Amino acid sequence: MNKKRKLGRGVAVVGAGMSKFDMFDNRDSKDLFIEAFNQMLASVDKGVDPRNIDALYLGNFTNDFFVQQSHWSAIISDAIGLVPRPATRTEGACASSGLAFREGVFAIASGFYDIVLVGGVEDMSKRSTREVAEGLALAAIPYERKSGFTFPGVFGAIATAYFEKYGACRKHLMNVTIKSHNNAPLNPKAQYKSSIREIMDAKIERIRTRGDSIPEWSDEIDFLSDPGANPAIAWPLHLFDCCPISDGAGCLLLVGEEMARSFTDDPLYVVGLGQGSGRGLHAAEDLTTFEATRSAAREAYRMADLGPEDIQVAEVHDCFSIAELIHIEDLGFFKPGEGYKAVEEGLTRLDGPRPINTSGGLKCKGHPVGATGAAQLIEIWEQLRNKAGKRQVQGGNLRIGAAHNLGGTGGTCTFTILERR
Amino acid sequence: MNKKRKLGRGVAVVGAGMSKFDMFDNRDSKDLFIEAFNQMLASVDKGVDPRNIDALYLGNFTNDFFVQQSHWSAIISDAIGLVPRPATRTEGACASSGLAFREGVFAIASGFYDIVLVGGVEDMSKRSTREVAEGLALAAIPYERKSGFTFPGVFGAIATAYFEKYGACRKHLMNVTIKSHNNAPLNPKAQYKSSIREIMDAKIERIRTRGDSIPEWSDEIDFLSDPGANPAIAWPLHLFDCCPISDGAGCLLLVGEEMARSFTDDPLYVVGLGQGSGRGLHAAEDLTTFEATRSAAREAYRMADLGPEDIQVAEVHDCFSIAELIHIEDLGFFKPGEGYKAVEEGLTRLDGPRPINTSGGLKCKGHPVGATGAAQLIEIWEQLRNKAGKRQVQGGNLRIGAAHNLGGTGGTCTFTILERR
Repeated sequence: MNKKRKLGRGVAVVGAGMSKFDMFDNRDSKDLFIEAFNQMLASVDKGVDPRNIDALYLGNFTNDFFVQQSHWSAIISDAIGLVPRPATRTEGACASSGLAFREGVFAIASGFYDIVLVGGVEDMSKRSTREVAEGLALAAIPYERKSGFTFPGVFGAIATAYFEKYGACRKHLMNVTIKSHNNAPLNPKAQYKSSIREIMDAKIERIRTRGDSIPEWSDEIDFLSDPGANPAIAWPLHLFDCCPISDGAGCLLLVGEEMARSFTDDPLYVVGLGQGSGRGLHAAEDLTTFEATRSAAREAYRMADLGPEDIQVAEVHDCFSIAELIHIEDLGFFKPGEGYKAVEEGLTRLDGPRPINTSGGLKCKGHPVGATGAAQLIEIWEQLRNKAGKRQVQGGNLRIGAAHNLGGTGGTCTFTILERR
Repeated sequence: MNKKRKLGRGVAVVGAGMSKFDMFDNRDSKDLFIEAFNQMLASVDKGVDPRNIDALYLGNFTNDFFVQQSHWSAIISDAIGLVPRPATRTEGACASSGLAFREGVFAIASGFYDIVLVGGVEDMSKRSTREVAEGLALAAIPYERKSGFTFPGVFGAIATAYFEKYGACRKHLMNVTIKSHNNAPLNPKAQYKSSIREIMDAKIERIRTRGDSIPEWSDEIDFLSDPGANPAIAWPLHLFDCCPISDGAGCLLLVGEEMARSFTDDPLYVVGLGQGSGRGLHAAEDLTTFEATRSAAREAYRMADLGPEDIQVAEVHDCFSIAELIHIEDLGFFKPGEGYKAVEEGLTRLDGPRPINTSGGLKCKGHPVGATGAAQLIEIWEQLRNKAGKRQVQGGNLRIGAAHNLGGTGGTCTFTILERR
C-alpha cells in the first residue's frame, strides 16, 4: 500500500470533449456521448482518425435501472462506429468514469493498446426525483440504505459531524455554494447559469412584480439562510447544498506518451494515479474524512513525487457542499478542520491561490453521475492548456492539476494528477 | 485492428478458487465471493499473504436490479478485508468477469501493480424465472428487446438460421447437451450432477412407481425429443438446450510473470488476450456468427502466435446449446457449418481430440452470469495443471488452453489463452 507506483509506459491526454450538462427530455445516452465524442475529435489539434482508436472504457452507474438497459459499452461502441473494437464498462457509483480513465491508462501503459477513448455517460432526468434518490442509494453500503439513508441524509450526517468536531456552521457550507455559483456562469457547459446574487435578485424582482412584500435579504448568506428561499433537505443540508439531477457525457483521448506530440503540441501527461476503497459510514470512526480519498491521494502523490502544495487547480467531488470541505482537507490542500476557513477567506475562489471546482463543480456544472469523473478531468485539461475561457485561472501558466472522484459513501475514490510540460 | 498486440510485462495466474454453483436460498454475493476467495488463497502452492494483494477487479452484471444493490466492488473489497485498496467493477453482461480478468492483466502489465485479484459474482436465484428473463434481456441491444426478444428467443432465432444455412437439426443441439451432462457429474462445483441417461432412467423409475405406462425412450436423443420430457422454450430450443439460473463466484490471482515462481512452481502464463464488441442481431448480415468473437479470437491468436489448432482444451460460452456450435466455429476449432458434425462425431468430448467445456459448461456447471468468465478460466487453470480430477483431459500433458466469454447478443466477447510452461 505504501509502495511507490509507476507505469512502464507513460500516458498522455491529447483530446477531450463533453456534452452540455442539463436535464434533457429528448436526448438519451447515445445522443449525449456522440456529442462529447465529436467535440473530442475536434479538440485534437493535429487530428485523429477515429478508426485508429483501439478501445473504449465507459463509466456508467444508473442506466441499468433508470433507463432499463445494461451493457452500454456495446451500445456506445456501436453509436460511435467503434465495433468490433473492445468496449468495457466500469462502475463504481459516482466514480464510474474516474475508473474508466484509469483503465484506459493501464491498457496503454501495458503496451497492449496505443490510442484509447475513455469517458462516461449518464441519463438520469427521465425519472422522478424520488426514483433518482432511491436509485442512487443503491450505491450506498447496504447497512446505510437499510437504515433509511439516501445520499442527502448521509452527507447531512457528515455535515453534522463536521460542525460538531470543528465548530463550523451552515454559513460555511453556503460559502462553498456561493463560490460554485460564481464559477458556473463562466462555463458554457454548466447546467446552472446564475450566481446566487443573480438568483436572489431575480427572486426579489418576481416578488416585486406580484406586489408582495420584499424580503430583507442583505446578501447571499442572508438569502441562503431563509428557509423559504433555500428549504431544508436533510439538516443541515438545504436545497442549495445539493447537486442537481443531470444528463451528460464526457470523454478524453489517451495515447502512449511517446506518440503524444503527433496529436498535439500541448498534451497533458498522467503523472499521478490513485484509487482507494472504503467501508462506508457504519464502519467509520470519524465521519469527517474518507479513507478511500486519503489512500488514493497517498498513492497518486507518491507516484508523482508531488504533494498537495503542488496542485495548482483541482476539481473535487462536491456532490454536496460539505463534501467539498471534507475533500479539500482529505487531499491535503488544507489541514483537517481548516477547509471551511480557507473557503471563507476566498482561498478556493477562481482568483484565489488554490482554485477548486472552477467548472462550477458537481453543484452547478451538473452531476450526470457516470460522466462526472471524465468531466472533472476535462476541466483540468482546459485549465492546464489555458483554454478555459472566462473561467481560466490567471496568474501565470498552470502546470499541475488534479481531479478527485468519489463513489457511494466513500466506497470508491479515484485521484488523478495531470501535468503540462 | 490487425496489429499484433503485446504486453510490456508478462502476467501469470498463480491461484484460483470458486464457490459451488447452485441456487442458494440463504447465500448472497458476499458469502459466495468469500468462499471463492478462501479457496483461491488455499490454492496458491507457496502461499500468499492477502495483505499483499494490490487491487481487485470484479465482474458483476445483474446485482443492481436483481438484489437492488450497486457498487459491489466496494462491498466485496470490504468482505475480503481489502479496504482501502482499489476495487473496480466491470460490466459487459455475461462477459463481465472475462473483462475483469483482462483489466487485472493490464494493471500488472502496466507495471503499476504486482498482485491483483480478479473474479466475478452473481446472485440470481432470489428472483422469479420471469424476472430473471426480463432482467437479463437488459443486456440485449435495445432494438431486440423492443421486438419482444428475451435471450432464449434470440438464440432460438440463431439456431433456426444455423439449421437453415447448414442443414443441422435439433438432434445436433441435443448432442451438445448430452456431452455437457456427461462432463458435469465429474465436476464437484457443478450445479447439475446427472447425465441425460441418468435423468432419463430416474424419470422412468418415477413413472414406474406411479404405475403409469412407461415411455419407449431408446436413448438420450429419444428422451430429449419427447416434448413431455423436454418442453419447448423458444423453438427450436427446448428446456435442455438452456443453461440454468445460478448463484456463484470465482476468482483468480494474477502476478507479474517474473514473480510467479515465488507463488507456485506451476503457474500459467497469459499468452493471448482478445476482446471484441458487436452490434447485435439487428445489424448482423449472418446470424450464425458473432463478429465480436471473431475479432477477439484474431487479436488473441495473433498476440500468442498460435492458431485454433494449438488450443488443447477450451471453455466456450454455451448459454444455449446452439451457442456452443457457433463459438467452436467462430474460434476456428472447426470450419463454419462443421461444428455440429464435429460434436456428433464426439470430437469435443472429454476423451475426444478437442475437449470443449470439460467443466460441464454454462449448461451444467451453471451460469451465474458475472462469475462465468472467471469460472471458465478456473477450469482451464485446473485442466492445464492436471488438477481437474475425474474430468481431467487425458493423453499427455496439456500446455495450451483458452476461455471464451460472450456478453449480450454478441455485444462483448473476451477470448483468453493460457499457457503452462
